[in-house]
Amino acid sequence: MEDRYTKGLKNLEKIHPKTSKALIENLEDIAPDLGRFIVEFPYGDIYERPSLDLKSREIATIAALTVLGDTKPELKDHIKGALNVGCNRQEIIEVIIQMAVYAGFPRAINGIAIVKEVFDEIDREK
Amino acid sequence: MEDRYTKGLKNLEKIHPKTSKALIENLEDIAPDLGRFIVEFPYGDIYERPSLDLKSREIATIAALTVLGDTKPELKDHIKGALNVGCNRQEIIEVIIQMAVYAGFPRAINGIAIVKEVFDEIDREK
Amino acid sequence: MEDRYTKGLKNLEKIHPKTSKALIENLEDIAPDLGRFIVEFPYGDIYERPSLDLKSREIATIAALTVLGDTKPELKDHIKGALNVGCNRQEIIEVIIQMAVYAGFPRAINGIAIVKEVFDEIDREK
Amino acid sequence: MEDRYTKGLKNLEKIHPKTSKALIENLEDIAPDLGRFIVEFPYGDIYERPSLDLKSREIATIAALTVLGDTKPELKDHIKGALNVGCNRQEIIEVIIQMAVYAGFPRAINGIAIVKEVFDEIDREK
Amino acid sequence: MEDRYTKGLKNLEKIHPKTSKALIENLEDIAPDLGRFIVEFPYGDIYERPSLDLKSREIATIAALTVLGDTKPELKDHIKGALNVGCNRQEIIEVIIQMAVYAGFPRAINGIAIVKEVFDEIDREK
Amino acid sequence: MEDRYTKGLKNLEKIHPKTSKALIENLEDIAPDLGRFIVEFPYGDIYERPSLDLKSREIATIAALTVLGDTKPELKDHIKGALNVGCNRQEIIEVIIQMAVYAGFPRAINGIAIVKEVFDEIDREK
Repeated sequence: MEDRYTKGLKNLEKIHPKTSKALIENLEDIAPDLGRFIVEFPYGDIYERPSLDLKSREIATIAALTVLGDTKPELKDHIKGALNVGCNRQEIIEVIIQMAVYAGFPRAINGIAIVKEVFDEIDREK
Repeated sequence: MEDRYTKGLKNLEKIHPKTSKALIENLEDIAPDLGRFIVEFPYGDIYERPSLDLKSREIATIAALTVLGDTKPELKDHIKGALNVGCNRQEIIEVIIQMAVYAGFPRAINGIAIVKEVFDEIDREK
Repeated sequence: MEDRYTKGLKNLEKIHPKTSKALIENLEDIAPDLGRFIVEFPYGDIYERPSLDLKSREIATIAALTVLGDTKPELKDHIKGALNVGCNRQEIIEVIIQMAVYAGFPRAINGIAIVKEVFDEIDREK
Repeated sequence: MEDRYTKGLKNLEKIHPKTSKALIENLEDIAPDLGRFIVEFPYGDIYERPSLDLKSREIATIAALTVLGDTKPELKDHIKGALNVGCNRQEIIEVIIQMAVYAGFPRAINGIAIVKEVFDEIDREK
Repeated sequence: MEDRYTKGLKNLEKIHPKTSKALIENLEDIAPDLGRFIVEFPYGDIYERPSLDLKSREIATIAALTVLGDTKPELKDHIKGALNVGCNRQEIIEVIIQMAVYAGFPRAINGIAIVKEVFDEIDREK
Repeated sequence: MEDRYTKGLKNLEKIHPKTSKALIENLEDIAPDLGRFIVEFPYGDIYERPSLDLKSREIATIAALTVLGDTKPELKDHIKGALNVGCNRQEIIEVIIQMAVYAGFPRAINGIAIVKEVFDEIDREK
């Protein structure tokens, strides 16, 4: 049986193939165990669970990060993650617009500014 | 062309068939325009948009309400709403558990307590 | 020169004539200094400042408490306080409805439910 | 009868004469409907309502944005908006200082840093 | 080597001897894995870490729960938990009063109301 | 008897010897009374209280600021403050990691990024 870290790393690489290494490395010399916990708990325990597909999980995560505020690096990563697991661009935009209803327009406007930045980055890389 | 209020009422009744009237009536003698705005903007403008299906919208809403906290009446309504547009019980539970990752365990635990209350209500009504 | 506590008590009694004593007494046997700080800092230092009238201050406070969530006892007190310093009922309702724009509909709906409770209490006391 | 978009645009231009166009244009190629919703709902429906004057509405908005956090672009716009509808500089400062009471000192300190930035920008433009 | 669940259960029982069973049982028929995650991650991984003593951890937790709002059941449990790992009553009160500085007076006042309820419960049980 | 301002200044200088002056000076030409309130209330009234040691107070503050989000300048100051009153680096890291449990991983990850920035600044100054 695979251990939680191995499972988590697979999910992390599936969802964030370009940034998963940076996430762990950034934490390595300051709080390496936080890096390990991220691999093991969200990605090894939660995203591994079968009863909800990864696309729906990323929709929930984008909603959550938009509502929370002050989550720009995480929101950027999960917008890319959502694209990697099957969301299209308009679906991501829709989730963020919808957050105007539940968390107010400032959070939605900021979320859209971040989504625009991410899509521009992706288009430039092409 | 249907107006926003008519469209909103249809979506409201599709998502919350049992509570849509109470929502509007509760606001009628104190802030009737807020009732109208709810029908027109979230349900007439947002939930009407074609690029994201209602099931995904309810997943995003349950994530948002769990993260926000102090949203028990709304979360109860949208748990029922999610069931009405095609989520199954376990999917709703999964979204709320996942919020432990993004908003911490207290929000997830409270969300699960609310989901339990809703499922118990539904089971008793059967 | 009046000290901060005396000034604060005057403002507290002007804004919350019916509940000021209960606020202080409730804290007396558990955290009396918190009661003293409330009199001295918000009511003695802040509400005492001349550059903004009390009516505008209460509008700002009702906006803040609606946005924060989980502030029912404080919001009830400040709705009454707003009425005591010159707001009319509709102005209070307007501030709370407006919060739908900045903090989302759930906070506004909850705020309106609280305002309704307060107005009903006032009407019954008449 | 003027439609909501036309009314909203008038209010948007009255409150934010210098930034209203940028707000809509920034959203145009990524989420144009969000731009339209902002014109129609907050500015066409809410700021249009007669029972609360625009100055009081801006006081409520500045309170809300200070409390929310992570709202720098919106707070900058509404500080200017408050000046445009009749608030003086000290009144805006007072609202933000008062938020120390309801949302803690970090939110108030950040709000004051933003207000300083806005006033400096205005003074340089003169 | 003990597994995470066993370690977590020991910490959970040390910190919350009276409520640890109820916490897990409440989740058993609705989201048993969330119960398991609580034992394994916060109590098995985090509270197990040697570099910060349990008393300091509970001080941090009480600060966090007071700031978050809408966390009454968790705050009640952790007030008892803080007493169980060496905090005295006045220290807990001090942490909550201090939160007036960082999250505003409403959160501190609500926190003190909850602490009063807990101390009263403990005194009645004696 | 020392007045609140004098007491507050002493505590401010003990906790933040390098930044206390900048904090007050930054506010001097825009909101000098907010500067005075910070000295008098948090540092003169709260941090002066004897029933909780300064090290525990800084642990509570770091927890609170991590949970709140959008508090980078304050968190940087209080990380240094915590070191100045007896916390070691690992204890600060532990408090922030623990916040993953109560406020979710994004807040903890952002907190750790800030702590890393502060420790790097301190190391470069040596």
